[in-house]
Amino acid sequence: MKREIFIGPVGIGGSHPVSIQSMTKTPTVDVVATLKQIRGLDTAGCQIVRVAIPDRESLPAFRRIVARSPLPVVADVHFDAALAVEAIGAGAHGLRINPGNIGSPTKLKEILRLAKERSIPIRIGINAGSLAKKTRRLRLGPAERMVHSALEQIKFFEDQGFRDIKISLKSSDVNDTIAAYELIDQRCPYPLHLGVTESGTLLSGAIKSALGIGHLLRKGIGNTIRVSLAADPLQEVIVARHILQALDRNRAGIELVACPTCGRTSVDLLSRVRQFEDAVIGWRPRRRIKVAIMGCEVNGPGEAADADIGLAFSRRHGLIFRTGQLPERVEAKDAVARLVELVRALVDQS
Amino acid sequence: MKREIFIGPVGIGGSHPVSIQSMTKTPTVDVVATLKQIRGLDTAGCQIVRVAIPDRESLPAFRRIVARSPLPVVADVHFDAALAVEAIGAGAHGLRINPGNIGSPTKLKEILRLAKERSIPIRIGINAGSLAKKTRRLRLGPAERMVHSALEQIKFFEDQGFRDIKISLKSSDVNDTIAAYELIDQRCPYPLHLGVTESGTLLSGAIKSALGIGHLLRKGIGNTIRVSLAADPLQEVIVARHILQALDRNRAGIELVACPTCGRTSVDLLSRVRQFEDAVIGWRPRRRIKVAIMGCEVNGPGEAADADIGLAFSRRHGLIFRTGQLPERVEAKDAVARLVELVRALVDQS
Repeated sequence: MKREIFIGPVGIGGSHPVSIQSMTKTPTVDVVATLKQIRGLDTAGCQIVRVAIPDRESLPAFRRIVARSPLPVVADVHFDAALAVEAIGAGAHGLRINPGNIGSPTKLKEILRLAKERSIPIRIGINAGSLAKKTRRLRLGPAERMVHSALEQIKFFEDQGFRDIKISLKSSDVNDTIAAYELIDQRCPYPLHLGVTESGTLLSGAIKSALGIGHLLRKGIGNTIRVSLAADPLQEVIVARHILQALDRNRAGIELVACPTCGRTSVDLLSRVRQFEDAVIGWRPRRRIKVAIMGCEVNGPGEAADADIGLAFSRRHGLIFRTGQLPERVEAKDAVARLVELVRALVDQS
Repeated sequence: MKREIFIGPVGIGGSHPVSIQSMTKTPTVDVVATLKQIRGLDTAGCQIVRVAIPDRESLPAFRRIVARSPLPVVADVHFDAALAVEAIGAGAHGLRINPGNIGSPTKLKEILRLAKERSIPIRIGINAGSLAKKTRRLRLGPAERMVHSALEQIKFFEDQGFRDIKISLKSSDVNDTIAAYELIDQRCPYPLHLGVTESGTLLSGAIKSALGIGHLLRKGIGNTIRVSLAADPLQEVIVARHILQALDRNRAGIELVACPTCGRTSVDLLSRVRQFEDAVIGWRPRRRIKVAIMGCEVNGPGEAADADIGLAFSRRHGLIFRTGQLPERVEAKDAVARLVELVRALVDQS
């Protein structure tokens, strides 16, 4: 069990469930666009949002964003310790700094003093791409180098009596990321923020994130996650939800089982599956609802019967299966609409 | 080390690298469309293709497909053992049957006799959604039930002196899939064909496949993989390649590291990353080439310097880094075109 910290109302570590984070990609000075993006992230299931403060000009905007954000806001600051100090003053619920570039110990002490006074947790966000020069010179492997940098920084924080810490050790390499988190997990009591950094665009990034974050979560490592994609941040949240849902059978959400189709399939299943997905996008049931859409008689009836609601196609018809009810036969062309209707009812009851 | 089998020229098990499979989704009777799909799969990096034989009418088509396919072809047969026998006669390089539905032991013996005569390996393809009734009635967990079914079938095959076996135990649940493969891996010497079945559409399916297949491969389990998606089969191969590439630093291919962008980014990085991806789609270098496209000065120069070729943007310019060369400064608008040109040269030299 890791130490418990709070970013606004969201608990991380302790016995809190793994939370989902993302980061805004709008210019921070554009308050309207940034708040719009944050609201979208909130609706998609994001629980904590990070906002970059690249310069002084962004500070007043950051203050207004924090004041109106539906999600707790973490300030992301590099290079300039004074900005971090001001971000705390502007109401940030958390701070992320990178030991590789935040500047002198004196400045860092000032950040820690103020963060402690305001009970603001700080993430020590190590990144393989921006280690301090002296760390890059160490004769260590890439994972060990990140761990070394984190431990050094943790010691500095602890020496100042600062313990509301969260750690991340991100690399764009999945194996290095996994190795680094496995090492640090053994060596510190602080909650871990998982992520594979700069993992690529939607598809390749989702795959790298699932490989890295998924492996660690299955080993019981990790308290909060951020999928970082070169894509709309909404997609980061959707990918994070898919990862958590696939690993935890009890996590609320619509789980779709859909057959890949083959030369045996007699209906245009792919377009029907997409039709279903488009209809339910953003639906957030309070429990897990498993929906199966299957194209033929091989695994169709079996999977459909195992789901909360299943639809199995034969040549001209769809059979809709619901737990504890007789199968319902519908015309193939009406089957998805009927399925959507029944799933909506389940979501409303959940 | 698992027993070595061959599907046409492709070795599975032994010390062979993990191979990539997919399945055609065109109607098998449409020979032209099916062959076109197979050629596309081949170009994308698929090594073995499976084709369903849903009925007698598909047999002559299957024979013509096998004769002209650039990839070895596995026949997928359900319900009708006679079709399996005929598929072997039609030149299939491998056979996939599902013990849950293939019919009587007498018929299966005939399949095994013929497959042995022709040296055709058979995959025992267990699927959680189509277990035999008597297996479904066993008081076992979902993973144990699949393993029980596989072991029973393996024994039957061995009793007939048939050992050119490959095993798969697929479920649409990631945890069940992992548990089943971990169990069977301990208990049989045959190569394993990994996959999470009916895993959903492109994104959710890629994530579930990365979680399941990735976890097993990292543990050294698995000899060949099939990503099954409710999507174009080309995407199955692309996802499979991403999984293998992310886990194995030595696997040939273009690895793209791209920053997720944030409020700090001053160029439209996402569209530039997509422009790069579109330009290199289908390029297959003979070694691994790591390309980084980064949006700012935080991790940009570090990641870019670590790549074979890196491009880091500042406000108006791009800096292109190449191993052992001075950085090259280009106008931001020309940067991607120049990057593509340099990567092409590396691919040609590889």
